[in-house]
Parts: sequence; structure tokens; C-alpha cells
Amino acid sequence: MTLNQSWVESAQANACDFPIQNLPYGVFDDGTGARMGVAIGHFVLDVGRIDHGLDPVLFAEPAWNAVMAAGPEAWARLRARLTTLLSDRAHRAAVEPHLVPMSGVRLLMPFEVTEYTDFYAGRHHAFNVGTMFRGAENALPPNWLSIPIGYNGRASSVVVSGTPVTRPWGQVKGPDEALPRFAPSARFDLELEMGAIVGQPSRGMVSVAKADEMIFGYVLLNDWSARDIQAWEYQPLGPFQAKATATTISPWIVTKAALEPFRVPTPDRERPLLPYLREPGPMLYDIGLEVALAPDGKEETIISRTSYREMYYSAAQQLAHHTSSGCSMRVGDLLGSGTISGPDKEGRGSLLELGWGGKEPLTLKTGETRSFLQDGDRLTLRGVAQGNGYRIGFGDCTGQILPAIELPDWAME
Amino acid sequence: MTLNQSWVESAQANACDFPIQNLPYGVFDDGTGARMGVAIGHFVLDVGRIDHGLDPVLFAEPAWNAVMAAGPEAWARLRARLTTLLSDRAHRAAVEPHLVPMSGVRLLMPFEVTEYTDFYAGRHHAFNVGTMFRGAENALPPNWLSIPIGYNGRASSVVVSGTPVTRPWGQVKGPDEALPRFAPSARFDLELEMGAIVGQPSRGMVSVAKADEMIFGYVLLNDWSARDIQAWEYQPLGPFQAKATATTISPWIVTKAALEPFRVPTPDRERPLLPYLREPGPMLYDIGLEVALAPDGKEETIISRTSYREMYYSAAQQLAHHTSSGCSMRVGDLLGSGTISGPDKEGRGSLLELGWGGKEPLTLKTGETRSFLQDGDRLTLRGVAQGNGYRIGFGDCTGQILPAIELPDWAME
Repeated sequence: MTLNQSWVESAQANACDFPIQNLPYGVFDDGTGARMGVAIGHFVLDVGRIDHGLDPVLFAEPAWNAVMAAGPEAWARLRARLTTLLSDRAHRAAVEPHLVPMSGVRLLMPFEVTEYTDFYAGRHHAFNVGTMFRGAENALPPNWLSIPIGYNGRASSVVVSGTPVTRPWGQVKGPDEALPRFAPSARFDLELEMGAIVGQPSRGMVSVAKADEMIFGYVLLNDWSARDIQAWEYQPLGPFQAKATATTISPWIVTKAALEPFRVPTPDRERPLLPYLREPGPMLYDIGLEVALAPDGKEETIISRTSYREMYYSAAQQLAHHTSSGCSMRVGDLLGSGTISGPDKEGRGSLLELGWGGKEPLTLKTGETRSFLQDGDRLTLRGVAQGNGYRIGFGDCTGQILPAIELPDWAME
Repeated sequence: MTLNQSWVESAQANACDFPIQNLPYGVFDDGTGARMGVAIGHFVLDVGRIDHGLDPVLFAEPAWNAVMAAGPEAWARLRARLTTLLSDRAHRAAVEPHLVPMSGVRLLMPFEVTEYTDFYAGRHHAFNVGTMFRGAENALPPNWLSIPIGYNGRASSVVVSGTPVTRPWGQVKGPDEALPRFAPSARFDLELEMGAIVGQPSRGMVSVAKADEMIFGYVLLNDWSARDIQAWEYQPLGPFQAKATATTISPWIVTKAALEPFRVPTPDRERPLLPYLREPGPMLYDIGLEVALAPDGKEETIISRTSYREMYYSAAQQLAHHTSSGCSMRVGDLLGSGTISGPDKEGRGSLLELGWGGKEPLTLKTGETRSFLQDGDRLTLRGVAQGNGYRIGFGDCTGQILPAIELPDWAME
């Protein structure tokens, strides 16, 4: 079989993250206004200005929500049309004027986040964190093997890659302190996750198969977490301000269609799932993931390497569970997978795990050590699905830590 | 001082919930389409069609979000204008044609909920629930007196009064069961709350004084809760599907301006608050609240009577805390107060408390008993601020329980 190739030279399938097999969706601004775009090689296709074959109103706003709402048939039609336009040289003359060099654009939020839900569905992460807090015997909460545990996050916290992240203030209380203090978080952390984007609405309970159909695509997601704020606030109703400072996503929505060849099953069940959570087929994807940490202006160190296939629950299972109480889902809902850690130390998806709660600080290439994030640190998540002769990239998911703001007068003692 | 009166006869100040002192904002449909309205006496004023003095574009959509976004000065101008139009008889001829009898309209969601946050900030409720689960000695979590504990809820669950509520399915596990079952909730409950509506956006940390300025108005709120689903799911990350079935709000937004005469301070602090949570003035309101339960088609029983002044934390304090990590707030965000229970048994704001976890079932006027809600039960929250010669009503916040749906084939064993 000959691999489909684009006439865009920089999109050679084996040499870039955005070959014609990918065609991820984003929003860009080249200085003349925000518009919807498709990544191809080193370019962004100004998709609203070509003969895309869908209703032009779907491209009126700089966000992919309207296309999502148009439904799976429209999704398939657009992808087929883009594939034709970008591979068949007959269309080159018409399309090429609408290719904008990626180096000259700013990438913006690719969609409007309606609601954001985060899960806790990585087996190794849950085991690591549970072991630190409760010992290996009681690491997994009793419900963990039955429920894809989730909690509602804050949609207003979601920002696109490149947005700086300001260290939060919050209530913290050390084990030896009688009362909490209001202080900048001293245990600010990243969480390596994937985000699944809900592209179709639902009312009432949906099956795992239907949930999978509702998903439009995936992004990388960094669920920035203030461990010290969380420790004091999270009982009994869960994390709140610890997770509300920022949630960074990668700029390109990689569609479910592009990921289709990379489907893999969830791991064997250690406890049988209730029928409403059973999968009719493979619902995870084999996406290689890495986390890089670069102290301000210095060389980066890859601090973690793992894969999305390490999840215990798929996004489709999470979405099905999300609807089980009758909860309505809407176009633009974002589901964070939960931290993705591999089975080995090298694959841990948070500094909490990598540095074992501060007990085993990481040493970086620069010689510095890290237990948690320091001001100036730049964190970058990367994801690639490696196909036969091509790869599907997500684009960097990056953010740099800015120092906490000066405390306003009214918040001082 | 003579009380201001409206020329609308049914709006006599001492005889109705919607005198000219109230002027709450809603959305109605009289069969000719959904529009923004103002309650006055037994009528809804079709506000978009009168000379309201604001930009007409603010009334283009059937939701109050655009007026909220216009800011506090516009809020004050609209209220002053409505007061003039509805009290000065010179305007009667122009305005009266736009009064629609309330008995002939359907009331819809008064605003689009952007994000929904629920709190746990009633001292008596937290003490009651804590006593049931952990004993009176350890009733309050260690952080309770320092943090207005909150968690993110599901905005898509919010419905307007009158919307039926279908009993949810969910994972439940009894204390003697080894594994969970998927079953209709057998411990479905109400929670009596107030909702505060955020009318102005913020970026970064805001003070309690600024938070109070950002609040547009208040509604009654019933945070329907599946206690059995919650018991199994909520550790370690908080309630999720237990709270996602429905959240009912009353149809009229009672503005902060209308409630101004009813401000009362929060109770004395049992532990000093951190400076960022201190109130510059009284931020609660003296609003009498009651809960009525009517078995399907039968006489109702008032099962609880309390007041919003029983809260330990005000909505302004909750909102200030919400922003403390840098979390952005947006127009249309809704904050649930947390269950409002009074100090006595008669003032408990949930069946969990009223029936003490099923141990002391309530007896209704019909002779039936209740530990939790049964199919067909109609729950109604009511709220009134009693002024000198007038009262400010909220309109009923009601919902009837429908039986759980038949389980779909794919969810059966």
C-alpha cells in the first residue's frame, strides 16, 4: 500500500507531526484576526477560505464548536474533502494561497470549553499517590476498580499552550501548624493527561459505544495542581482551588478519525465492570507521551515517558459514566483523562510521583534538582502516535511558571 | 415615610410577592416566543418592548446575561427606570399594554448558567451531616471554620422550577455488599439552598467587597442529591454523579438592589478568618425559607422553615475564595450556598437531616412517612424577605420526582 502524501512538501509523512494523515484542527491569528485552521506540514490552512464543502456559517466564529455540532457525518465529509484538496495536485493552485506559515501565527484556543471534567483513571498514578498517602496495602480507594472516578473542574481555567501560568496563592497548613496560612503554593505541580472533546450532545444515559461516537477528538492536557492547597482543602468534597489556576491544552484537536489506526484495548479488568461500563471494542489509543522540564532559559530534561495506553478507563467509559445519572452533555465539554503514569518510575506523570512527595528530588540535566515546580520553569507535554511510515503529532502543550502576584493590601494581616 | 406603590393594582405592596420594591427578572413565554420579563403583581412586564432606557441589543436574547454584562451602572439605571414607569401613572398608558398575565405564561430559565459551583457553608447542616457520619465530636472537618468549602458542580444540570426530575440510576453499594450494583437511587433527597448569580467577570484574586459588587442577584436553589450514589463515589474526589441529575432554581432573579434592606451580618467567627475572607459589612440577607413536600396529587406538608441568615459564609465570601487561586469568573456563573439548616430540627434543609439518615422518618399531614423522596413527590422551596409593609418573594422553586427510566438493554447484566 502506498502511503497517501500531500503536495505540501513540508508535510512528508515520515518527517513531520502534521502529515495528511493527521489534519488536526486549531484556531490561529496571523495578525489579521483569529480564524479556524488545519495543520499541514509547516503550514496552517486557512480552512474557512477554501472550498471546504460545509455550510460557511460553521466557520464564522474562531472556534470548532459549530463544526462539532454539525455531527459525525459532517466531520467525515470535511476530513475527506481536506484529504482530497491537500493530496490531489489539481487543487494546488486554488488551495496554496491559503496556506499560512505556522512560524508566523499565534495559536489560540481551538474551541470554547463548555464544561470541564477531570478524571482519576490512571492505574499507576492512583496506586503511586495512594501508596504515598495511605500505604501500598490501601493504595487504591475501594471504588477505584468499579468507577472511573471523576470530579467537575473549572472550564474558565482552560488555556491554550503558551499561556504563562502564575503560581497561585491559597490556604495551606503544614502538619505541625495549628492554623492555615495564606501563601503562594510551594508544591505546584503538573499532571500529564489527555483531553477528550465531546462533539455531540446527549440527554440521559448513553452507552460506551455511543459515548465513543460523541467524541470529536483529543488534545494533550496539563492539569496544573497545587498539592499543598489541595491537601488542606480537599476533604470532604474534593479538589477546588488547587486545580483552578490553569489547565493547559495543546493547540491542535487531533480527530478521532486520525487516531483510528492506533486504537488499543484497556487493560484486563481486575474486577468485572458493571455492564454499563463495558467496552464493545478497543477505546484507548497508543499515543507516546513525554514531559520536558526546562528551568528558565536553560536546557530541558525529559522527566517522563509513557503512553496513553496505560489508562485503566477510556474516555468513552468516562463519558458513559458521566451520563449515568442522567447528566446532560453538551458540545465543547472537555474530559481530562486523569494523570497518565506508566508502570516504571521513568513513566510517572507528575512531580508528586517523580519526586515521591519531595523525598526523592529529581536531578535535571542542568544539575539542578526539583521536587516541585520553581518560578521560571517551562513545562512541555508532547504526544505522538507512531504509524507505519508516518506519525500523528499533537503540537507542544507548554506553559511557563510566573512568580505569584504581590498580595493585595486587603488580603494582608 | 410613604411606601412607594405601583399603579398595577395586583402589586399592592403588602399583598403580593412582587411589589414595586422587588422587580425580579425572568424569562417567559406566552405562546409567542421566549422573552425577558419583570414580575410586577400578577403580571409579567414584557420589558424588551417598553422604553427601558438601555441598549435594545441587551434584550435581544431570552436571557439576562447581556444585561448582567452591561454592569452595575446599567443595573441601577434599569431598576430606576422600571420603578418610575411602574409607579408614575403618567406612564401607565404606554406600559400597560405590555403587561402579560402571569397565569398565562410559562417561565423559562432566567439566564444561561456559565459554570455552577456548590458550597458547603451552612454551619448547622455541616454539623448535622458530620455528626451522622463521624459523631458529634468530629462533626466539622478540620478546614470547615477556615474555608468556605466548595466544589464544582455541573452547569448542564441546572433547570428552572417546574421541570420534572427523573430519579437517577447509579452505582450503589450497601455496607454489607461486596460489590456495587447499578440501581435507581433509593436515597434521593433535596437540599434547600440559595443561588448567587455572578453578573460581572473577574481575573485574578478579588476582595470580599469586590465580590459583593460582582453579584447580580439571588434565586432559590434545590440541589437534588442521591445520597446512596454519593456515599459510594465521593471518596476521594468529591460528589460527581450524585449531584448531576438536576439542580432546580426559582424562575425570578431577585436583584441585590431589592434585597439591600435585608442585609444581615454572618455569625460571630468561631475561629478568626484569614484577611482575604473578612467582610467589610453585612453580606447575608434575612430571607425566610420553607420547604414543602406534597405526595403525588395530595396535600403538602411544610417540612422545614429556616432563613438564609443561618449561613456561616456569605456568597461574597464564597466568591472571593473562589478567585483566590487566580480562577477567572464569568458572567452567568452560579454559586449554590450549600444546604441551609437552622439550629432546630424544624429548620433542617434536607431529608437526610430531617429523617436523620432514615432513622427517624418524617410523618406528613397525609399520614405517610418519608426518609427520602418517593416517586410522585413534589418538592417546593419558597423564600420571602419580609419588609416593613411589603415583602420580596422569589416565586416557587418546584420539581416533581418521576420514576427512574427503564434500564436500556446494553446496561443490563
